[in-house]
Amino acid sequence: MTADFQKPESLAGDIALDLIFRQARTYSHFLDRPVTDETLRAVYDLARLGPTSGNCQPLRIHFVRGAEAKARLEPALAAGNRKKTMAAPVTAIFAMDMEFYEQLPSQFHDPEARSWFAGKPKAIDEAAMRNGTLQAAYFILAARSLGLDCGPMSGFDREKVDAAFFAGTAWRSNFLCNLGYGNPGRLHPRNPRLDFDFACRIA
Amino acid sequence: MTADFQKPESLAGDIALDLIFRQARTYSHFLDRPVTDETLRAVYDLARLGPTSGNCQPLRIHFVRGAEAKARLEPALAAGNRKKTMAAPVTAIFAMDMEFYEQLPSQFHDPEARSWFAGKPKAIDEAAMRNGTLQAAYFILAARSLGLDCGPMSGFDREKVDAAFFAGTAWRSNFLCNLGYGNPGRLHPRNPRLDFDFACRIA
Repeated sequence: MTADFQKPESLAGDIALDLIFRQARTYSHFLDRPVTDETLRAVYDLARLGPTSGNCQPLRIHFVRGAEAKARLEPALAAGNRKKTMAAPVTAIFAMDMEFYEQLPSQFHDPEARSWFAGKPKAIDEAAMRNGTLQAAYFILAARSLGLDCGPMSGFDREKVDAAFFAGTAWRSNFLCNLGYGNPGRLHPRNPRLDFDFACRIA
Repeated sequence: MTADFQKPESLAGDIALDLIFRQARTYSHFLDRPVTDETLRAVYDLARLGPTSGNCQPLRIHFVRGAEAKARLEPALAAGNRKKTMAAPVTAIFAMDMEFYEQLPSQFHDPEARSWFAGKPKAIDEAAMRNGTLQAAYFILAARSLGLDCGPMSGFDREKVDAAFFAGTAWRSNFLCNLGYGNPGRLHPRNPRLDFDFACRIA
């Protein structure tokens, strides 16, 4: 056993399960309460611990908070996402660094890891999308665990966002997520979910 | 406010954060303790609550547990993943239903939702991959919250898995994840993680 590791004996209690899963909802409307840098850092510091393939960690995040940055984002949003996004305290652009493999020599114990990707666009695309999306999901659940609410969105023009925020870099947008403290008075009833017996099988 | 909704007042405590993020690790070796159907169902029932675009829920899971199914999986595994996977109590094949949009009429409040995808292979592929991967991440963290440990893996032949498990269906494999109760005596030290100031920016 590694010296610094001790697995907790208990399971996550009802408060955590309610907060992260059972009572959590996607919010379009947020309370007038700012999201601090410290909170965003605390969420990332939890989310970054989640597993990625070869510890490749392609997720990059641009947190859009100021009026100037919000104005740059607005033209890229689908019409139905504009008003709520402009009003949200923060909008995270979940992006992927398409040169993520350049960090592998410092992040993974196998010195060959960089060569699994360098010069291999198909492997890069697949790993960036899969692992960058896994990490974005870890971020969403970590945000909830610290009391934030999320409004993830796929409805936007990726090329416009990349041009407005990531020109001259290897970052590419994946999806967006409004962040804040949700206004429960503006929630609609939860949509249904597919049953285990429909979506899963054991054999 | 919807009648049945009450957001918890507290935040997730240290036990939950340790279990889900801070002390959680990727395991290759598991204790000799079975994973029950009830546990797999309880994990799915939490994970399915996580958000997907238009509530599209493309995730499907084949839980490989029996000797016959494990034997079918073995030839598709990368050499380095074979021994640990054959020894794991359960291996989840996280798959995507490429006809997920057929469920939208019952799962989403907008009757037009099916038409966003039907007959549009690029939109289907992108939504299946992004949302199926988000849901797989929710499953991993939900599994941890209920005391399970995970060993996710991308190293396998997707075509072989699809032929062995999903022939004649619209399910396609995304990645694999061993499940069980981890053996902490077989852990290596945790790899590093990228810092907030490297991976994120606020503007």
